[in-house]
Amino acid sequence: MKRSELKTASKLNIIPLGGLEQIGMNITAFRYEDSIIVVDCGLSFPADDMLGIDLVIPDITYLMDNADKVRAFVITHGHEDHIGALPYILKKLNVPIYATKLTMGIIENKLKEHELLNGTKRKIIKFGDSVNLGAFRVEFIKTNHSIVDAAALAIYSPAGIVVHTGDFKVDYTPVFGDAIDLQRFAELGKKGVLALMCDSTNAERPGFTQSERTVGRTFDTLFNEHKDTRIIIATFASNVDRVQQIINSAYKYGRKVVVEGRSMVNIIQTATSLGYLSIPDKTLIEIDQLKNYPDEQTVIITTGSQGESMAALSRMAEDNHRKISITAGDTVIFSSNPIPGNEKAVTKVINELLMKGADVIFQDAHVSGHACQEEIKLLYTLLQPRYAIPVHGEYKHLKAQAKLVENLGIDKEDIFILSSGDVLELNHEGAQVTGKVPVGTILVDGLGVGDVGNVVLRDRQHLAEDGIMIVVLALDKVGGYLVSGPDVVSRGFVYVREADELMEEARVLLDEAVQSCLGRGISDWGKLKSTIKEVLCDFVWKKTKRNPMILPIIMEV
Amino acid sequence: MKRSELKTASKLNIIPLGGLEQIGMNITAFRYEDSIIVVDCGLSFPADDMLGIDLVIPDITYLMDNADKVRAFVITHGHEDHIGALPYILKKLNVPIYATKLTMGIIENKLKEHELLNGTKRKIIKFGDSVNLGAFRVEFIKTNHSIVDAAALAIYSPAGIVVHTGDFKVDYTPVFGDAIDLQRFAELGKKGVLALMCDSTNAERPGFTQSERTVGRTFDTLFNEHKDTRIIIATFASNVDRVQQIINSAYKYGRKVVVEGRSMVNIIQTATSLGYLSIPDKTLIEIDQLKNYPDEQTVIITTGSQGESMAALSRMAEDNHRKISITAGDTVIFSSNPIPGNEKAVTKVINELLMKGADVIFQDAHVSGHACQEEIKLLYTLLQPRYAIPVHGEYKHLKAQAKLVENLGIDKEDIFILSSGDVLELNHEGAQVTGKVPVGTILVDGLGVGDVGNVVLRDRQHLAEDGIMIVVLALDKVGGYLVSGPDVVSRGFVYVREADELMEEARVLLDEAVQSCLGRGISDWGKLKSTIKEVLCDFVWKKTKRNPMILPIIMEV
Repeated sequence: MKRSELKTASKLNIIPLGGLEQIGMNITAFRYEDSIIVVDCGLSFPADDMLGIDLVIPDITYLMDNADKVRAFVITHGHEDHIGALPYILKKLNVPIYATKLTMGIIENKLKEHELLNGTKRKIIKFGDSVNLGAFRVEFIKTNHSIVDAAALAIYSPAGIVVHTGDFKVDYTPVFGDAIDLQRFAELGKKGVLALMCDSTNAERPGFTQSERTVGRTFDTLFNEHKDTRIIIATFASNVDRVQQIINSAYKYGRKVVVEGRSMVNIIQTATSLGYLSIPDKTLIEIDQLKNYPDEQTVIITTGSQGESMAALSRMAEDNHRKISITAGDTVIFSSNPIPGNEKAVTKVINELLMKGADVIFQDAHVSGHACQEEIKLLYTLLQPRYAIPVHGEYKHLKAQAKLVENLGIDKEDIFILSSGDVLELNHEGAQVTGKVPVGTILVDGLGVGDVGNVVLRDRQHLAEDGIMIVVLALDKVGGYLVSGPDVVSRGFVYVREADELMEEARVLLDEAVQSCLGRGISDWGKLKSTIKEVLCDFVWKKTKRNPMILPIIMEV
Repeated sequence: MKRSELKTASKLNIIPLGGLEQIGMNITAFRYEDSIIVVDCGLSFPADDMLGIDLVIPDITYLMDNADKVRAFVITHGHEDHIGALPYILKKLNVPIYATKLTMGIIENKLKEHELLNGTKRKIIKFGDSVNLGAFRVEFIKTNHSIVDAAALAIYSPAGIVVHTGDFKVDYTPVFGDAIDLQRFAELGKKGVLALMCDSTNAERPGFTQSERTVGRTFDTLFNEHKDTRIIIATFASNVDRVQQIINSAYKYGRKVVVEGRSMVNIIQTATSLGYLSIPDKTLIEIDQLKNYPDEQTVIITTGSQGESMAALSRMAEDNHRKISITAGDTVIFSSNPIPGNEKAVTKVINELLMKGADVIFQDAHVSGHACQEEIKLLYTLLQPRYAIPVHGEYKHLKAQAKLVENLGIDKEDIFILSSGDVLELNHEGAQVTGKVPVGTILVDGLGVGDVGNVVLRDRQHLAEDGIMIVVLALDKVGGYLVSGPDVVSRGFVYVREADELMEEARVLLDEAVQSCLGRGISDWGKLKSTIKEVLCDFVWKKTKRNPMILPIIMEV
């Protein structure tokens, strides 16, 4: 095909605005002429160097610049990395949301919190149904994942069909609802699929992810082995199927169930009210009723499986929970794997639990929600896409999927490892990255959205490393001579009561430096401040090999 | 045995001063009457919340209080967590050091850096030899570990023999020197061992740790598979055997070897000069000579296998290394596993390497240096100790060893999971924890040893989270009225240029509050400062839901 033809035919644009440099913050724009739809709108959690930041949301400058064209947010499932940015983004760009029932239920909880429920159009879509959005039609296809009601999307455009898997695994024996709709994927493959955007999270792992149901069997075994103790199970709040299986085992073994942790309670309420969780009568009890039952007749399902310091399990382990204390003989089951980066926090909780005499069980009580290599290959083989666009992962995950796909016979140049902001133009005649739109991350800290940027972060890193020394002095407004100070105050630098000498030496040195400046007629505050910084910085480095932030403040009186 | 007997017989005291709450900072005192010996003197790396801290060393108050009794430091091997605190501790407590040859070589490098070499008595001990130290005799026994010349210690006291394994594994086919001296452990077992203090690092892992030699075979395979590319291998600087095997493979496949990274260069020099590393002629080249050889005839051995941001490999991956750039086609081998807590840093480096087109290999190019369950059981079975004291690990590791040992038939009450500071009194008639000595951690930050404590750390954490707001004002010395300010300066709180309004509102509010205080005749600086803090804290929290440190500074002019 010639270059000129590529230019004239109308093409589909796929523009990821996040989710390709990290696991988290998934958001992708699809554009055909004047229609834009956005798949997912997730947040990510702050990197280690983003001190004090609560969460991170995508920069949607591109969408704002094309606000009149944006038809909808189409959401694949209810995890934070796919829906978490919605309340922030909707405040700037209010377009309708389309999602399956439980996904919408979870979104609505968020919108309520942000008082956005009434102002936001929402439509629940059933699996197999489609919605027309400008030039697009989007069909929701049943998949399996670690949250119920997860959908893949078939995105029909005049340029061809793109299938976006969302997060998925193939579970032939799911706990709730049907297995992934492999037949529909096969039909779409027969029709002809332009591109497949497939979950890469587990693309490095060979084999097949185990069925969620295997965890249920593990629970049965564990409940049978620990008939004489209380059982505490930590898992992800949003894994409704997991909670269902714990409840099933509890019921089978005659135990009452307490749910603890705010996010867990919220999700369970939503899932129950929407019919995704069936709890036998009198199985669920309030935490205050625990005392009415012997330990061996109770199960506590709790948050904190990632060692989060404020979560219920961590508070129990630290003897810091108002209602539940760990005692010798408790059986604590982690129904989870530590997410990379959380290993040390999880280990800390385990050590604390063991020290209190609890029996801690980590093995076999968890399966992943993401497809391993054999499942990824299955989807590609059913869908036979013209182009492969690995999504949802760090570079190494995307690359692992790319390698896998190459082995399936897809040409290297038909596999696109995109970066956020890339504009991929494609139709059945060709595909290429033709441009770049602005992208980035917006930091949320407390109520502030975007008011903490690199300058503030660098300052926080500097303050964290060596603290701050503040030098204050007062100059006479008319004469320019020193009327008070310089005084030196420090925080996070050194324990002042034991460093009197050091601080006094610094003060004397600064006094000399300031007097000398003023004596030479230097009254430019900029120069005075830089002299103070230099003198103090040199002195402190020589004495301590530390580099605190130095902040001179001059007052005029 | 009656309590009264226990009191009268002279007993051995085992007093761990570190190493039992974490992996790191190993140091244990053994006391019999007026003789104290200290096994190992390690550092640990700062926990995540120890902002700005470089390293952590043990509190040796107990040793200082008994300085006249301390006969020696006896060192098991040359890793930082066993020797790293020596230079700091020797400055306070100068007693002789006993160690094997390579261990001493590495210690001497440290002492040179700290200008302690001439002032410190040192004696190299051969495997099988003993040294008399007051009431003790200490025999060095050959073991295997991820550093050459690692020793177990048989500590003979009038109360009985204690065996301390140091860090060990059982390697029947080590790369350098002999296998662990199992016969000697068996002999000691026959004689009768009072207590075994055994490495717990891998006590959770079933099976047997692979021989170091298996990694050599992997290198051969990888070198054979990657004949056409440059090979870069990241590993631990101190693993001399690993480096030897890389050099062996390089020589076999006709490649020149460059060593990169300061710690790697140091160790290799020491190991070579002491005869622990044999490098064929003309195999090692300088980094500047790399350009004289085609890529496929070179190997670079480098530091940075843990993703340390300043290490050579990370700098290469970031295109920030003065001499080596990663190019498409490079083969990068991680001959290491990420230490818990380093997973994200390692993944970051891998992503960067992959983005530059390098082939990154992680599998099978590493084995652990610590004994798994079968090896631990082997040692217990050879030594048949009366008491078991699991060491070297977090609580979960110690607990795992305790479980293992219980299964071997040792009574639960003869297994002691100690905490740092516990005084375990023991002889063949009995053992019990009878007291507690002061222990703790001393933080090293730059040149400061112990001048950063909890107050400073809490300040750093506070500063890191939300930054600082400084309020300065000047009062008239005589009249007590406001002559300048209040001015508000912030760092790490909010980007000031975009928060003019917020800062101005704060200033106005503070002005009112201060004027009102002064108007009511309040001139107590404490009261004035706490008013400022309250007013500003409330205002900022309402506006931003943040909680910066607030620091009022009042000047008198």
